[in-house]
This record gives sequence, structure tokens and C-alpha cells, in this order.
Amino acid sequence: MPAMLPPDSVGLVKPLRAYFDEPLALACGKTLSTYEVVYETYGELNAARDNAVLVCHALSGNHHAAGYHDMDDQKPGWWDAHIGPGKTIDTRRFFVIALNNLGGCHGSTGPCSIDPETGRSWGPTFPVVTVSDWVHSQARLADRLGIERFAAVIGGSLGGMQVLQWTLTYPERIANAVVIAATPRLSAQNIAFNEVARQAIRSDPDFHDGWYAEHGALPKRGLKLARMVGHITYLSEHSMGAKFGRDLRSEELNFGYDVEFQVESYLRYQGDTFSTAFDANTYLLMTKALDYFDPAAAHAGDLAAALAPATCPFLVVSFSTDWRFAPARSRELVDALVRAGKRVSYVEIDSSHGHDAFLLPDARYQAVFGGFMKRAARELGLEGN
Amino acid sequence: MPAMLPPDSVGLVKPLRAYFDEPLALACGKTLSTYEVVYETYGELNAARDNAVLVCHALSGNHHAAGYHDMDDQKPGWWDAHIGPGKTIDTRRFFVIALNNLGGCHGSTGPCSIDPETGRSWGPTFPVVTVSDWVHSQARLADRLGIERFAAVIGGSLGGMQVLQWTLTYPERIANAVVIAATPRLSAQNIAFNEVARQAIRSDPDFHDGWYAEHGALPKRGLKLARMVGHITYLSEHSMGAKFGRDLRSEELNFGYDVEFQVESYLRYQGDTFSTAFDANTYLLMTKALDYFDPAAAHAGDLAAALAPATCPFLVVSFSTDWRFAPARSRELVDALVRAGKRVSYVEIDSSHGHDAFLLPDARYQAVFGGFMKRAARELGLEGN
Repeated sequence: MPAMLPPDSVGLVKPLRAYFDEPLALACGKTLSTYEVVYETYGELNAARDNAVLVCHALSGNHHAAGYHDMDDQKPGWWDAHIGPGKTIDTRRFFVIALNNLGGCHGSTGPCSIDPETGRSWGPTFPVVTVSDWVHSQARLADRLGIERFAAVIGGSLGGMQVLQWTLTYPERIANAVVIAATPRLSAQNIAFNEVARQAIRSDPDFHDGWYAEHGALPKRGLKLARMVGHITYLSEHSMGAKFGRDLRSEELNFGYDVEFQVESYLRYQGDTFSTAFDANTYLLMTKALDYFDPAAAHAGDLAAALAPATCPFLVVSFSTDWRFAPARSRELVDALVRAGKRVSYVEIDSSHGHDAFLLPDARYQAVFGGFMKRAARELGLEGN
Repeated sequence: MPAMLPPDSVGLVKPLRAYFDEPLALACGKTLSTYEVVYETYGELNAARDNAVLVCHALSGNHHAAGYHDMDDQKPGWWDAHIGPGKTIDTRRFFVIALNNLGGCHGSTGPCSIDPETGRSWGPTFPVVTVSDWVHSQARLADRLGIERFAAVIGGSLGGMQVLQWTLTYPERIANAVVIAATPRLSAQNIAFNEVARQAIRSDPDFHDGWYAEHGALPKRGLKLARMVGHITYLSEHSMGAKFGRDLRSEELNFGYDVEFQVESYLRYQGDTFSTAFDANTYLLMTKALDYFDPAAAHAGDLAAALAPATCPFLVVSFSTDWRFAPARSRELVDALVRAGKRVSYVEIDSSHGHDAFLLPDARYQAVFGGFMKRAARELGLEGN
């Protein structure tokens, strides 16, 4: 709880809602006849409506990217380190939009919402949404707000995939792309970890084939395991070692199965917290969106060919100890962008924090990312400091 | 099923049993009053009884390291690639002993055995055994067979930890040490993966606090998940990619949760097979033995100091794409051995197979390992070509 708001905070923010009754056709073949999207904005949309920046979230993210909902909040939004007056994404210059993607569990239409056709919760019948579907729904939100072209679309991890899709689906509507800690497609190992998470959730007897809410149950064991596995892949071996090492919780080995090493305690806590805070059906959907993303697939695996439609400059950022989406995966994207004749700046940030580094402040990361954003603002003729 | 046995096979083998009624005091403070060990031997013990080699198994291994139990067997023992006449561990020269460790589920005393004090299965009350305990029990077996000193003690992964412990507990009883794909202690990340496996098993409602057998149940979901996670860490990202890539099982995406990618199918199959073939309480014990192994702990983290008692020559082998126990972990051991003034040969084998490479044939691996064994035989004056 901040006794007072930090001066570089966007301050107290309120989620907004946008309701759509134009049907949205999804990649899976189904259609959402109506849907609602929850979002937040930071900064001011200028008169020309050309200073808007879209921030896309990752697997377990949401629309609350910066600021506080309440003076009693323990923590600000998930990317507060990078969004605010004078920060990397400078809200004195940019109008920032962050939304909760369709299929989410933080207010946008998803498995916990009511299916208008049946009058009951969608639950497991909510259609599998893809990165493309999200991009379409984000463009609709831009239409609603009168934004023809984004000054930038930005995201890390699964958010970076959405940025990449934006450059292909709506090249005329994106002036700059920032793709952070992402990959042009999941590896077999990435899919394997997702599959473990899905099996953990789906084999939990409390999952009830996805109808847990109707059974008054929660597949907490499954979600906990999914989160524990996920968490290992978000941290680097080094950061886990530096943070916990082989430290024991008490002086002596207990020769049993109670928490013994600090790292066990940390993982169990992370898993327990997540197991009641996040929706299992949403988690399944998000992992599928990750697995499916593969723009090169329609071009016989030729990523450079797939990237042909893109027109904007790219900033691609990776982190040295990220083993979920390693720097090599970003270089794969950068190579293809270069081969396709696109403008791209690439930087690999030295960091010990693994995949999670994209969420954290870091001097070089902020300098490069902030520099790219300043250049973007200058080229777009946006006012500022 | 071999239509006929390969000429370099140890052939048809039969497990043997050794019953001990001298109590074995364990590191946890408890004592096994009696116990039984199941083992196999390959080759002939010579008259001087100085050609014996002990092979130690890894997490899910057992005493059946080479040859066939039956002409109908689909597969030979788990290290058949390296044990046999003319192979790396040449049974024309060496007498090889492989046993199932205490706490195991393949015949040695463990959770599935009867606790003589209660007359019921040990189940979850079987004491947590450590690498040290295993080494003591292995030395007892050597006594029983009249073997004063092993020509070599050899093992990969958790097996390599047992080798290391042999050099410290019984330096006078081991002439050569071969430590393959191992580590002097688990990292926080290694412990974290083990903890996910344990939580998966222990949170399965069919686990019944370890009394599943008495409930007529099997914690199959938990064991399956544990094996799936484990399996990802045994393979390299590269070998998984080369084997499965993003290949789909059918032409089209199914936009659902049935098996879609080949890698999902493979992992589910591996998990399902394991979930009925291995005992859950044993799996828990084995992961704890891994977590606890840390000879440097008693020396304020100084591994070189911990290694002071060792006297024999070492061969340390790692594999380039092993990320479970990466080459850096072997180098840590090698550095400490060198600092402690020990004789050590180290080789990092280029392999795409990750941790599993230690089980597989590979020309350079066999040449180096075989060369070390030949030199050992020569120095010990053992007959053979």
C-alpha cells in the first residue's frame, strides 16, 4: 500500500468496459455474437488521435498494467515499472491502452462469462481463441476509441506474439512494433511444458471436464501444479540459485515431505496463490493460443515470407538467461525480418532474471526501449518533454 | 524380442537375492533391522576377486542393467549398450554387479515390502534413504560376495552420486570411479522440478497419504505428471525439436484438448506407461535422495575439502546438451577434484540427446569410457585382450 502515490505513477486508475454486438468470427470457425472487453488507459489521447500505444499481456496478465485501483493496493499494475510519466512508455507523450484479452478471467468475455445462447457460463465451451482473434478484437477496440493507427503496439512473451500478428494483419494500423522476450513459434519443449500444465489441470478430479463452477469446485491442485511448472520456466537457473540456493527452512533435514528447501516453500506459495486467483479454463485457452501461434506455418515454414506484409520498424528485445524464449528465438525472428527487408533493431539484455526479466526494470533495457519510444514519438511529431 | 541373442549380449540372466539380518542404521536416524537386496551379475568373478565392477542406477533404474530375462523380452537391461563381452564394460574382463537400491520397487526392500514390525507394507513409512545409506548397503553386498575392493564403481545421474559417495566413504574399497552426467549437488532448479513431481504425486486423491495399496488405488495421475515433467528434463530442447518439432498428429488443428502435437502424444504415452509400472512412494524417496546429496555441506560448501578422502582415479563424463545436470556441474566437480589433488580425466561428449545421452551408445563416449576401463584392467593386472 503506497502511503502516497509515487510521482512517476499514473496514479489511481479505473477499468473501463466496451461492449460489442457485432459478431466476431474466430479462427476456430465459431463466432462470438456479442462480447465485452475490459481495459484501462493511461495518459491522454491527443486531438489527432495518433499517440495511442497498445500494450498486450502475456499468459496470466490482464488489463491492469499500471497505477493503482485503490490507495490500499499492495502492488501497482504488472508493467508499472515501464508505464508512467517519464518512464519507458512515457504517459506524458503517449496514450496507453491495456486490455484483458478475450477468453481471460479478469473481466473480458471468457469462460466465466454467460453464454447468451444458453444462459449459463461458457465454462469449457468457450471457443479456443488465437493470437489472430485477439488482434481483431483489439482493432475493434481501437475503432471504438477512434484510433486509426497505433503509435506503437508493445508486448512481452505471448504479448510479443500479438505485436507480431499486428504487423501482419493490420500493417497500416501500427507505426512501431516492440516484441520483447517472445518467439515466432513455440518449440516442442515449450509445447511439452504447456501440455504438462494442461494435463495437471484436466486430470484434477475437481476439474469436472471444465464445469467445476457448476459443481461448486475449483481444480486448485491442477492449477497449482501448472503454475509451479510455469514458474520454473520463468526464472533462470541462476536467479533461482541466487535467490534460494540449497537453503533449508530449518537447520536440520526433516527426512520427510514437509517443506524443506526454501525453493519448495516459494513454489508452493506461488502455486497456492495462483490456484484460487486464476481461472483454469482460461489457463488452458492461453496455453493453446501459445501453442498455435506460428505465422510461418502458412508459408511452408518460411518466416521471412510470412513477415512480408509488415511495414513498420521493429524493436526486438531478448534477455540473456531467458530459457523459456531464449535469445536464439528472438534472433530467429530478427534474421527473418532482415531477410524480409524490414527495419529492425535488436538488443539482447544481460540479465540474471530469466524470462521474468521483461517485467522488471533494468538500466540498459529501459535505455534501449525508451530510446526507441522517443524516436517513435519524434518521428510521429508527438509533443513531450 | 530377440529371435536370437546378439553375440555381444550377456545373454539370459536371472536376478539373485541377498538377505541381510544385520541391522542397517540409516542417515535419517532409523534402522532397518533386516532387508533384502535383489541384484544381477554379468561375467565371472575371478579367483582373486578383484575384477568386480559395481554399476549404480539412477532415479527410475533397477538391477536389470544388461541381458534378457526371457527370450520373449522386448528390450534388454537399461545399460545393455555398455555392458557385455567386448563392450565398454567388458564382461570378458570384469564381473559386473547391478543391484536395486533400498527403497526401490523392483525387488529390494522398499515401500512395497512388509515391515517386519507391523506385518503390513511399509508404504509411506519406509524411511527416507540417502545416497550414503545405499553405499553402505552396497558395501554389505560386496562383503557377502567376498569382494574387498571394486575394480570400479560406475554410475550415471543419481548413480554418479553413489560413485562419488563411494570414493569418500570407502576409498580403500574402490580402485576406479566413473561419474557420468552427474552433479556434486542439485541446484535450486533441480530441487524445484523434483518438488513439482512430489506435489503431483502427493496431491493426487488416489495417493491416500501413501497408503494407496491398502485403498486398492494407484496415484496414476500424479505419477504420470511426475514422469512427464521428468522426461522433459531428460531430453534436450534440440532432441525434442528434432524428434517432434511442431508436427501435428492430424492435418488440421482441432481447437480442443485432445492430443494435437506429436510431442503431446509422446509425453502422455511415457507418463501413462510409467504410472502403472513404478511405485509412487519409491519415486518420492528417490527424489529426496537426489535433493539431499551434497557432500560439501559438511565442509561449509567447500567441495575440494569434502573430496579429501578420495584416493582413486576418476573419469568424469558430461554431455553437451544435458541441461538437467549440465556440463558446468561436472566441471564444478572436476575443478574441486583437481584442487584437492586427485587424478581425474574429464570429457564432455558432443551429443544432441540431453541427459538421456548417458544411456545411449556414442562412438566417442564409448571410446573414452572404454579406454578408461581398459587402463583400469591393465593396472589391476586383469586378464583379457
